[in-house]
Amino acid sequence: MAVKFNRVCVAGVGLIGGSMALAMKRLKIAGRITGVGRGERNLKDALALGIIDGYTHNIEEGVVGADLVVLATPMRAMKELVRRCEGKFKKGAILTEVGSTKKKMIDEVLPLVGPGVDFIPTHPIAGKEKSGAIHSDPEIFKGRWCIIVPTKKSSKPGVEKIRRLWLALGSRVETMDPKDHDRVLAGISHLPHVVAYALVGALLEMDKKNPMLRFSAGGFRDFIRIAGSSSQMWRDICLENKQPIIDTIESYRKQLERIKIMIEKEQSEKLEQFFEECRGVKELVDKGHD
Amino acid sequence: MAVKFNRVCVAGVGLIGGSMALAMKRLKIAGRITGVGRGERNLKDALALGIIDGYTHNIEEGVVGADLVVLATPMRAMKELVRRCEGKFKKGAILTEVGSTKKKMIDEVLPLVGPGVDFIPTHPIAGKEKSGAIHSDPEIFKGRWCIIVPTKKSSKPGVEKIRRLWLALGSRVETMDPKDHDRVLAGISHLPHVVAYALVGALLEMDKKNPMLRFSAGGFRDFIRIAGSSSQMWRDICLENKQPIIDTIESYRKQLERIKIMIEKEQSEKLEQFFEECRGVKELVDKGHD
Repeated sequence: MAVKFNRVCVAGVGLIGGSMALAMKRLKIAGRITGVGRGERNLKDALALGIIDGYTHNIEEGVVGADLVVLATPMRAMKELVRRCEGKFKKGAILTEVGSTKKKMIDEVLPLVGPGVDFIPTHPIAGKEKSGAIHSDPEIFKGRWCIIVPTKKSSKPGVEKIRRLWLALGSRVETMDPKDHDRVLAGISHLPHVVAYALVGALLEMDKKNPMLRFSAGGFRDFIRIAGSSSQMWRDICLENKQPIIDTIESYRKQLERIKIMIEKEQSEKLEQFFEECRGVKELVDKGHD
Repeated sequence: MAVKFNRVCVAGVGLIGGSMALAMKRLKIAGRITGVGRGERNLKDALALGIIDGYTHNIEEGVVGADLVVLATPMRAMKELVRRCEGKFKKGAILTEVGSTKKKMIDEVLPLVGPGVDFIPTHPIAGKEKSGAIHSDPEIFKGRWCIIVPTKKSSKPGVEKIRRLWLALGSRVETMDPKDHDRVLAGISHLPHVVAYALVGALLEMDKKNPMLRFSAGGFRDFIRIAGSSSQMWRDICLENKQPIIDTIESYRKQLERIKIMIEKEQSEKLEQFFEECRGVKELVDKGHD
């Protein structure tokens, strides 16, 4: 059965919110879509591009009558937005969000979710190093994972509806509890970013003594791109998912130490074997994308 | 004045050696090119593709009469190859090599270079995660840096000739001493690879307890690609450039620790400021590529 929401409210019409809106419109999953945001320019762009049908700066207005409310704002704004909407949601509305971390957010937001609201957090693991409605792309979810993280205030039919929404958008869907989600994301996404930021930071320091950055090539340029993501978003992620990220940094340090020792002791065979094992990761990862 | 070598010997007709040969032929910089290598299959491919005009498995034969000898073999083979060629080089021949590290190699090879041989190490900072003659691409040097590392046995006219060769191949050329070269490369290339290997190693470990690799996306996939380079080559680089690499790992650890502390102490502003500084690196790097 095709999934359908007559009226949708998207708060935060950035890359993810805008791409969801555009995809839902193209697939006729959504009827009227109201955008909510602070920046007039971005909302006007979204309107002109046909991503939304109207907009408001007030979330309290935006959610009225909506069958589906999508929070695609920065993580730290969510709690306040939900608080402001108390009593404004349509009865039976689904409230979802697409933030990068779950445990802390759910702990904070859940008490604010009133009766008759179906709260179903999700995390589409998709994105680009670009932001804003003008970069919206209805295809960015295709073949990517979307993790659904049901709460005590998620109904079974609601979860099923959200699952069908993401399948329709082309994603592969998995369900996790908040802790597992945060641990997995700390590993596959947050740690790689921390590692890239640390590398760029180290090169900036070294460059002061021995100018070298201008000779950068290949590998390092990928790190620069990764470290070029939104500073605010990554600050928020680091603070929202503090402990799991610290745990992964510890695991990482052990591996770095291990390599350092192999180099120091000139353990030629061990080094080659370790590098060869690392090459094998591609196969494991591809399993998730066949 | 156009640079020209009547007879060229390329030992190691892999990605770099093959690409140099192909570019030199296309630009009519080289007359006849003899390939030297161990693998029959690779040399036959190179011959069929018009990269070389003939081949031999014996470097002693290959260098006879050559005006330019290019060593593009694995680093660890170079010393032995030069030793075997003692007394075989044409008088006034230029002997060059394209290895990724310099100090240790030069210390070892220099005593073996006889009179009448102009030994001029270079390092074209170019490459792909592919190897073998069949991936040769005469364009891979375009816009990339080539570092010339003159030795006590490099003549000024020889260095100038090699500089013109690399300029003709489209590279930007810089001259450095061996220590500077190794320090710069440890920073911009070797450390990024070590960091990527450590990340992949850490994820492999974490995945054993909490399966997560199949959810990998975006950023991490770049690391997988970087860690997919030749294990043998990176083992050699780590051992050849041991101390500078260990020094960069130490600088890197400090930055990682700094981020960890900022997260632990929830230093929101400091974190954002640090991430923002890292974003600025793009500008510094682009200076080298304008």
